[in-house]
Amino acid sequence: MGLRFSVESCAGAARRGRLETERGVIETPTFMPVASLGAVKGLTASQLAATGTSIMLSNLYHLAVRPGVETIENLGGIHAFTGWPGPILTDSGGFQVFSLARLRRIDDDGVTFRNHVDGAEMRLTPESVIDLQRRLGVDIAMVLDECPAWPVSRRDAEESLARTLAWARRARAAWSGEPSGLFGIVQGSVFPELRRQAVRELAEMDFSGYAIGGVSVGEPTEDRHRVVEWIAGKLPADKPRYLMGVGTPWDIAHAVSHGIDMFDCVLPSRNGRHGQLYTRRGLLRIRNARFRTDSRPIEEGCECPSCKTSSRAFLHHLFRSGEVTAQVLATLHNLRFYLDFMRDLREAIASGSLAELLSSIEAAYVGDGADKPGS
Amino acid sequence: MGLRFSVESCAGAARRGRLETERGVIETPTFMPVASLGAVKGLTASQLAATGTSIMLSNLYHLAVRPGVETIENLGGIHAFTGWPGPILTDSGGFQVFSLARLRRIDDDGVTFRNHVDGAEMRLTPESVIDLQRRLGVDIAMVLDECPAWPVSRRDAEESLARTLAWARRARAAWSGEPSGLFGIVQGSVFPELRRQAVRELAEMDFSGYAIGGVSVGEPTEDRHRVVEWIAGKLPADKPRYLMGVGTPWDIAHAVSHGIDMFDCVLPSRNGRHGQLYTRRGLLRIRNARFRTDSRPIEEGCECPSCKTSSRAFLHHLFRSGEVTAQVLATLHNLRFYLDFMRDLREAIASGSLAELLSSIEAAYVGDGADKPGS
Repeated sequence: MGLRFSVESCAGAARRGRLETERGVIETPTFMPVASLGAVKGLTASQLAATGTSIMLSNLYHLAVRPGVETIENLGGIHAFTGWPGPILTDSGGFQVFSLARLRRIDDDGVTFRNHVDGAEMRLTPESVIDLQRRLGVDIAMVLDECPAWPVSRRDAEESLARTLAWARRARAAWSGEPSGLFGIVQGSVFPELRRQAVRELAEMDFSGYAIGGVSVGEPTEDRHRVVEWIAGKLPADKPRYLMGVGTPWDIAHAVSHGIDMFDCVLPSRNGRHGQLYTRRGLLRIRNARFRTDSRPIEEGCECPSCKTSSRAFLHHLFRSGEVTAQVLATLHNLRFYLDFMRDLREAIASGSLAELLSSIEAAYVGDGADKPGS
Repeated sequence: MGLRFSVESCAGAARRGRLETERGVIETPTFMPVASLGAVKGLTASQLAATGTSIMLSNLYHLAVRPGVETIENLGGIHAFTGWPGPILTDSGGFQVFSLARLRRIDDDGVTFRNHVDGAEMRLTPESVIDLQRRLGVDIAMVLDECPAWPVSRRDAEESLARTLAWARRARAAWSGEPSGLFGIVQGSVFPELRRQAVRELAEMDFSGYAIGGVSVGEPTEDRHRVVEWIAGKLPADKPRYLMGVGTPWDIAHAVSHGIDMFDCVLPSRNGRHGQLYTRRGLLRIRNARFRTDSRPIEEGCECPSCKTSSRAFLHHLFRSGEVTAQVLATLHNLRFYLDFMRDLREAIASGSLAELLSSIEAAYVGDGADKPGS
């Protein structure tokens, strides 16, 4: 059947919807935990399911380097390999064009990486990236794009975008009627005309969904939000809209209010591993001495395994002692927080109470210096 | 009610029994996963329960250093603190007399540690160790003993044993009728007369159970087994018998066949973290290249979360990639293996098939150089 997307209710520009895939229905707005190598760091697949996750994000570049797409294909595909039975979206490697800039050579036909593990060369082209994701058996594939650094000159951004759009056209031509979906990626850095050009051209190519890329690369929050404000409402309304690599709860709330449907971000898992725990009142730095004797759970009413059995004092103790279980419990809590927050956003859109939810999350998270991508 | 122990069936010297505590019944022979700091490394309390664990081992020395007994007491005791609702046994710190030898000063009245975290002094005496474990609220407390290094001269072993026995007498006097139990610890190194003297004197003091200490300190397997052969059958038959810090599946099988009821060991969790996985056919070193494309679970028929959803190839990939989930999945499998093995031992004792089980585990595990304590 492929992907089917329907918008069920709106609140201003915000949308509540359903994205149907062969492997399950995704209620949107949704958050995709990051499992670049096939597992969310520290969690088993069943623990991930218990957080409320409906779709997991993985990464073609990383899996192609290790263990290799052929290995995964021979083992029955990415779902059999990872043990995650639900939908999976893979990023294409376009972000690694940015994050591994010193290890890649880009030309008009594709990207050549000296991979970060053993230095062997790996060539990715718009067509090969489609083929590799098809062989993995992912539910949503992403086109190969070039994610420019920030800041970038207008001239370089323009040149990069031209390449990204040419690649998108080739990817779209290489992809035909799979049951899975293919998303195009809007680039153009912080230049509104470039971003709008990207939206126009990609919409004509007719993808299953549209992503905004090139954010969460070090730019100020205001720039990131501005890109969303320019672009989200211009993406085709009948297709899911995905803001890549974003973000804090406030970033997500802001983007949802402008019509974004899908998110992924390492913040809940990475911050969790560093003892930064999400609550409705803001971030809680569990290593802080004031939690040494605190018998309360991280957050009252939270149904995560950590809050159901562990006090802040126990988590504080495990973090201070360097125990791996600390990272596991914190990741379980933070992902649950994000997924509960997405559910609250969906319910608020349906019930007309989005404004209250946005202002409470703004009060809790805006201006909190530790709660930025990259912190 | 305190502890109640009954032997339900025997096969030669091997016993199948029930140890009843206020927090649950322990079927023996049993294995206690090691959670020195309150959590098995990488696992949540509910994951531990799912391995089939009925009693968890923790460590008074470690918890007294961090977060401190008073903190745990104020948080409602060790069960509330760790989130583990079942029985808990704590070792007293006697093993740290051995393992932290450079950080402690021993005298006839007790031990003074400069603790391994911040160097602060901590004094443990036979009486304080009873008091501290009572305040933690453990189900089974251990007396303070002196665990001598291996090898040790006969003269030093004798002197050390005299101190251990004097301490045991003082601990026994300090302990009176708690609902929890107190175990004495047999020392005496590899000297049979000293070991037998310890058994005689401790039995007269009337403990809730008796442990064999001073093994798994670097001695050859034969020495460890000889101590069990001398002593296990001489420990009071109506009380549980606990072999401390042991061991490999073969060590455990050997000890069970000589009448031991309880075990603890870091091997399944520590070896798991290093990619050594237990199966009925022997150890499987999952980082080995031959597992790169192996679609089978670690062990067919195993009900652990790893075997139910992950192939050897996926575990191999996660270990090679340095992912924390690898350690979690391996620990879950190894503990399940140990606990299933204990169940098989109990069933074999009841059904008269112990000899077959012992010879199959001997075939799988004897002579395997990597499968030794300390490896």
